[in-house]
Amino acid sequence: MFFKFLPQAVNFYDLFDKQVDYAVDAAKYFKELVSKGAIDDASLEKMGTIEHQGDEVAHDIFNHLNKTFITPFDREDIHALAKELDNITDMINTIVSRLVIYKLNSVDKNLIQFSLVIEESVNAVACAVKGLRNIKNSKSIQDSCVEINRLENVGDAMRDTVLAELFEKTKDPIAVIKLKEIYQDAETVLDVCEDVTHVVGAILLKQA
Amino acid sequence: MFFKFLPQAVNFYDLFDKQVDYAVDAAKYFKELVSKGAIDDASLEKMGTIEHQGDEVAHDIFNHLNKTFITPFDREDIHALAKELDNITDMINTIVSRLVIYKLNSVDKNLIQFSLVIEESVNAVACAVKGLRNIKNSKSIQDSCVEINRLENVGDAMRDTVLAELFEKTKDPIAVIKLKEIYQDAETVLDVCEDVTHVVGAILLKQA
Amino acid sequence: MFFKFLPQAVNFYDLFDKQVDYAVDAAKYFKELVSKGAIDDASLEKMGTIEHQGDEVAHDIFNHLNKTFITPFDREDIHALAKELDNITDMINTIVSRLVIYKLNSVDKNLIQFSLVIEESVNAVACAVKGLRNIKNSKSIQDSCVEINRLENVGDAMRDTVLAELFEKTKDPIAVIKLKEIYQDAETVLDVCEDVTHVVGAILLKQA
Repeated sequence: MFFKFLPQAVNFYDLFDKQVDYAVDAAKYFKELVSKGAIDDASLEKMGTIEHQGDEVAHDIFNHLNKTFITPFDREDIHALAKELDNITDMINTIVSRLVIYKLNSVDKNLIQFSLVIEESVNAVACAVKGLRNIKNSKSIQDSCVEINRLENVGDAMRDTVLAELFEKTKDPIAVIKLKEIYQDAETVLDVCEDVTHVVGAILLKQA
Repeated sequence: MFFKFLPQAVNFYDLFDKQVDYAVDAAKYFKELVSKGAIDDASLEKMGTIEHQGDEVAHDIFNHLNKTFITPFDREDIHALAKELDNITDMINTIVSRLVIYKLNSVDKNLIQFSLVIEESVNAVACAVKGLRNIKNSKSIQDSCVEINRLENVGDAMRDTVLAELFEKTKDPIAVIKLKEIYQDAETVLDVCEDVTHVVGAILLKQA
Repeated sequence: MFFKFLPQAVNFYDLFDKQVDYAVDAAKYFKELVSKGAIDDASLEKMGTIEHQGDEVAHDIFNHLNKTFITPFDREDIHALAKELDNITDMINTIVSRLVIYKLNSVDKNLIQFSLVIEESVNAVACAVKGLRNIKNSKSIQDSCVEINRLENVGDAMRDTVLAELFEKTKDPIAVIKLKEIYQDAETVLDVCEDVTHVVGAILLKQA
């Protein structure tokens, strides 16, 4: 009877590694797409698949969390971490969809810049998250978090510059509506990466 | 002395039934309003009243939660469920207010389509939430959640199509600003319904 | 060995007083800036400093929370309160940045009106938060919360009127895009103040 209630052994670290790898895939593929300009249906579908796979790992984590008594760190932190990692992949996928819906087909130098910063930040997120498995080496996790915060500030400044320029130079209001949303979305990805550092920071502090 | 601290017996199921009924009322009335086009002051007030009544039940739930030791399911899930149900009614009310403020007076076929999907989704939310009272019959709750997820996907595709068309056909930027926000809001209602399924799923898993 | 795990004594009330004082500073300085119109680089930097200082107190609270076993009220409420107070200062700073980026240099009577309501509301938030130290005098905390809710309703009505007027009178779509966002942001500050009353209400109820 008792064993009935015992969950299957699940390794949350493995699930988080898998989830953050999808975020890295999304960021990398996003960079490729914006450097080429026009996004075709096959590319849109491929990005949608990455997002869907990341989503499934997130749901795996939520499900295991609801059935597991003993977790490697606080339940609320596991939930928050899975949620934020999901938000990264989601937001990148949303930007790609919007580029297609808004028929933004030409190469946009600002967006390429954003995609480079996003890729760097998501890579640092992967280092921080994968580092949790070996939490005694918290120095390297902290270094990644500092880097993510730095890149969020870089993104903030980029968005401000790019929006000021957009309003200065673009006279077509429809183009302003579209690009303003895309640039703000791009900066939001970096905000979400920073949210990950808050969860990771809480985990580190509680284990210290 | 001790009895002083005992809360009045409160039935959270009754409160959730009441709250979700207001969401159903809001969705139904929303469908009526957009099928007629112009929204007059009396209609705006009626929708505001539904929203206000739903809000009061949400606060009842929060207050009882803060004073009750024993709850039918996890406190955090009760809080999240009341919050998400409140968000449904709130968002529908916001759309109606915006239609008035933006003086969008004519019948919009896209919005009628959204209102039909929203009504279906909120009805399924009501089935899922009312099913919690008899959690052993979790099959029917799960069916409702699958349906809500399906309708969210329908809404996503609708929003994408409708926005692409809006940017294609509408040359007046002011009209684009207004309708873009309204369509995105309409899809947000379906997102919030999907958020309810996440809370309901967590409740089911924990009780399994 | 045991003492190693004992946190330094920290007074959460002192930290919240400090944090809410930065919110008050931000609201007051915001009112000054919009009454003058054009915002220069020095003013932008000063507002950024206030926001940064508030942010640091928020992080202090989160860090102490993760290292402290005994807290004056529920951990989740401490976290939520610090988060919402941070959101107030953040949102005010965001508005100021946007005014600069959008080159909105002239005195805007609507924004002055908003800034007055925001200052009143943030002052009431300060009274509510500082009142928590002496929770037996909950009457005065409740009065502040009632006032914050009243001001949120005032802000809602203001935003609706101001947006209706904007769409009525302003023919330049670019100006509409900019001002619509600014007015909605201004109302969001009042929403966040109202969110504080929800946390404060939960704290009062649990201690009752």
